Amino acid sequence: MKLRPGRFFEDFVLGSRIVHPTPRTLTDGDCALYIALTGARQILPSAAPVAKALGYRDRPVDDLLVLNVAFGKTVPDISLNAVANLGYADVRFLAPCYPGDTLRAESEVIGLRENSSRRSGIVYVRSSAFNQSGELVLTWVRWVMVNKRSDEPGPRPVVPQLPEVVPAERLAVPAFLRAAKLDTTLTGATDLWDDYETGERIDHPSGLTVDESDHTLATKLYQNNARVHFDALAMRTSSVGRRLVYGGHVISVCRALAYDGLENALAIAAINGGRHVNPTVAGDTLYAVTEVGEKWRLPGRDDLGALRLRLIGLKNLPPAGLEFPIAPDGPYPADVVLDLDYTVLMPRRLP
Amino acid sequence: MKLRPGRFFEDFVLGSRIVHPTPRTLTDGDCALYIALTGARQILPSAAPVAKALGYRDRPVDDLLVLNVAFGKTVPDISLNAVANLGYADVRFLAPCYPGDTLRAESEVIGLRENSSRRSGIVYVRSSAFNQSGELVLTWVRWVMVNKRSDEPGPRPVVPQLPEVVPAERLAVPAFLRAAKLDTTLTGATDLWDDYETGERIDHPSGLTVDESDHTLATKLYQNNARVHFDALAMRTSSVGRRLVYGGHVISVCRALAYDGLENALAIAAINGGRHVNPTVAGDTLYAVTEVGEKWRLPGRDDLGALRLRLIGLKNLPPAGLEFPIAPDGPYPADVVLDLDYTVLMPRRLP
Amino acid sequence: MKLRPGRFFEDFVLGSRIVHPTPRTLTDGDCALYIALTGARQILPSAAPVAKALGYRDRPVDDLLVLNVAFGKTVPDISLNAVANLGYADVRFLAPCYPGDTLRAESEVIGLRENSSRRSGIVYVRSSAFNQSGELVLTWVRWVMVNKRSDEPGPRPVVPQLPEVVPAERLAVPAFLRAAKLDTTLTGATDLWDDYETGERIDHPSGLTVDESDHTLATKLYQNNARVHFDALAMRTSSVGRRLVYGGHVISVCRALAYDGLENALAIAAINGGRHVNPTVAGDTLYAVTEVGEKWRLPGRDDLGALRLRLIGLKNLPPAGLEFPIAPDGPYPADVVLDLDYTVLMPRRLP
Repeated sequence: MKLRPGRFFEDFVLGSRIVHPTPRTLTDGDCALYIALTGARQILPSAAPVAKALGYRDRPVDDLLVLNVAFGKTVPDISLNAVANLGYADVRFLAPCYPGDTLRAESEVIGLRENSSRRSGIVYVRSSAFNQSGELVLTWVRWVMVNKRSDEPGPRPVVPQLPEVVPAERLAVPAFLRAAKLDTTLTGATDLWDDYETGERIDHPSGLTVDESDHTLATKLYQNNARVHFDALAMRTSSVGRRLVYGGHVISVCRALAYDGLENALAIAAINGGRHVNPTVAGDTLYAVTEVGEKWRLPGRDDLGALRLRLIGLKNLPPAGLEFPIAPDGPYPADVVLDLDYTVLMPRRLP
Repeated sequence: MKLRPGRFFEDFVLGSRIVHPTPRTLTDGDCALYIALTGARQILPSAAPVAKALGYRDRPVDDLLVLNVAFGKTVPDISLNAVANLGYADVRFLAPCYPGDTLRAESEVIGLRENSSRRSGIVYVRSSAFNQSGELVLTWVRWVMVNKRSDEPGPRPVVPQLPEVVPAERLAVPAFLRAAKLDTTLTGATDLWDDYETGERIDHPSGLTVDESDHTLATKLYQNNARVHFDALAMRTSSVGRRLVYGGHVISVCRALAYDGLENALAIAAINGGRHVNPTVAGDTLYAVTEVGEKWRLPGRDDLGALRLRLIGLKNLPPAGLEFPIAPDGPYPADVVLDLDYTVLMPRRLP
Repeated sequence: MKLRPGRFFEDFVLGSRIVHPTPRTLTDGDCALYIALTGARQILPSAAPVAKALGYRDRPVDDLLVLNVAFGKTVPDISLNAVANLGYADVRFLAPCYPGDTLRAESEVIGLRENSSRRSGIVYVRSSAFNQSGELVLTWVRWVMVNKRSDEPGPRPVVPQLPEVVPAERLAVPAFLRAAKLDTTLTGATDLWDDYETGERIDHPSGLTVDESDHTLATKLYQNNARVHFDALAMRTSSVGRRLVYGGHVISVCRALAYDGLENALAIAAINGGRHVNPTVAGDTLYAVTEVGEKWRLPGRDDLGALRLRLIGLKNLPPAGLEFPIAPDGPYPADVVLDLDYTVLMPRRLP
């Protein structure tokens, strides 16, 4: 029998390396679909001539499309039997991905901790996506709770030390990027790194209602095959009672909504962490609020700075209805679906 | 605060030029999606070898995909606060757009007229889309009603003179187009320009039911961010109570339906005007009827003629149920959603 | 009047050749959409470098995307008035199709048999799809029941002899294919041709719920314009009462679900026959079960074998609930939607 039941806690060995199946060539087709699925208007993936003027070889594939596809590759090996996706950290975008590039992914098991019940355990993996030249494009850590096959005692617990934030000096800032070449008439806003203040709140004006076909199309595009997103029959007996929108797609939609007010955020350099605090299902209308966090100068760059942002995703509640601030660890109102801590690169006002 | 509230009547200045944000590279991905979203079977965007045999450099991007993307670019600056999209005129397709081309758009304010209430006004703009070489691809005029910020008296009213029809001599007929090379076995019908008669009615046989995901995917593909198409929560309190299908997508669907009976209409040369007389929402089944209008010979061309067509879009009423004729200004039955006056290029029967 | 009513039984002439309209250029855009619409993870269409390592010029377009587009081309001429799609046979995949290739299709009428009622008849056609170089990519026979215009007696009945199976020696095995180059860490499973046994049953673990937008997007992508898939208003009075999912898309979804357990099935060489025994509609959750049939060695190839597979598509019933075996001709439980008999090429374990 060719059953493919996915891995249980016992199948993960500390230090082992897992090569994830089916590399994926990303093309103009994926880029067009990503725009259709999210409404993204970020300038670099939208306009090849603008990307080229800034030093890119071509328009880059949207950072979050890269992330979602790379993440999808890890699902069959890491989280098919996950009871819960507990968190992610140290997500670093290291090189642009261009249409025509092929991504492959692998993971290393960097931590294992059995739960006291002995019925499940937490698996920590460092995953990495490479392009066809073997260049590291993206790397991240995540941890998931996975069922055990038996209640035999597990291995000695090892929990990795994870950074709370990717500091400025660990961000991969493309050497080729000529941020000063950005013509802000093409993004629709003149606000640059200098114009954002720590603590500032941006209520992004648009809302987007998610329907079954668009979130399932997105998640299939990402080749993420986790059952909870696709199998309405199986989900009938779940607590929510229906298909769940994949959290990575929620991030994508919220970032697309966050275009207005962050027009000159050229690229995502890192995701420091994130929480999906309530489920999103078809019919929900998503909104986004940004809270501006730290502002970092970048070594050797006076044309470009980094902004740490907190992206709050809301469902069925326009931004004006959100009571701020939310403490970093919650508690979260039932309308909040996402609390994402990430870092973008943005041009600075030249002296 | 980085609010992006859109422009009010007072923000428009006669004669000013607005460069619209986010140029857009159109690719094979957009073309495939356009076929999936509309069911279009028009020969030139479908088949590269046929397009090349007729003199095109490659298969052109569907005229209406170009229009919808170019139009979408103008939304954030022109119509985000529009109370009503009142009309459009003098839409001329001037050069083909090919996969890989990048469109950017700009508008000039050509008219302003405050309403007597002093609470809103009508803004007339001439918008233009250019490719990456600066070549003018498409130009059109539209007018929208926009709210005012205050009831201070507005500027002296200026209303532009607009042509009722783009006359034959102003149509951009591609010099490279070798219409006689069209092999009509590849379009499935032998009817050419000569075979259509003014006053003839064509009941297109197919119907297409629109669902939420497909109209919203289309409108996001066009990067049109008008709230009425996406935010089901906000629309609950609107008169229709739900998301509206973007009028440009209604045109696209109706033209795709109109393939049967107009198989050899190679390209749209102009849209003379159009009315969206009733809303379309998900669940509506669209049908199309064409009334053949004027037939024009084209200067210096015996291989190609122009047909002025009236495309009537219906909802939930198959063509046979439509009582004709409808006067050019209506009144319109509640089943009519679209009354589009446009001009196509079609090969002529050679002597 | 430019009515396009489709062909009736009397319009088919034995031995006549029908050139189907609108050739279609297939691109990276179609490939991306196919993944989004089906969740396919088959390695060759997914990853260009893997395909190239195995001897392909580029990643090939998914076999079933080619089939569905080629099939769609024949609909306006063959089955627009079909009362029933009765069957297909001898479907052979003869050459890979690559992004950028243009398909055109034609059919020859190879059989005609009036029904005893004289109100309809069965039409047998051999259809073929060619690429832009005139190379035969795909050929198949199908037969449909078509209404007659009148009850005048039809022509002398001619029923073609059709093979029950495409035998190993008639399979087109690409001479360039270097199956031994497949790195199975990239497909996620080490099972090769040698590891499958006749009679083995594979319960594919995933399920996929179909929604209105995704099946209609797929069928429009295939440019299949059969009304039953699109026109909800017209379908209200049908026996099912709603739009039907196109059978070719059901095959595509079931094959995508069948990835887990058949990861190294590189390409479809033939479809021997198939039955769509119950309708699929939006809201249905599809599952797939494979029964392994004959195993064939291929002449001159010790790196590659052929597997004949029976793919059972289920609706709203996970595989474990299916009582096996089902006799080759049924009867079928109401949960079965598809019974497909097809042949794949799979690498063999080297000595």
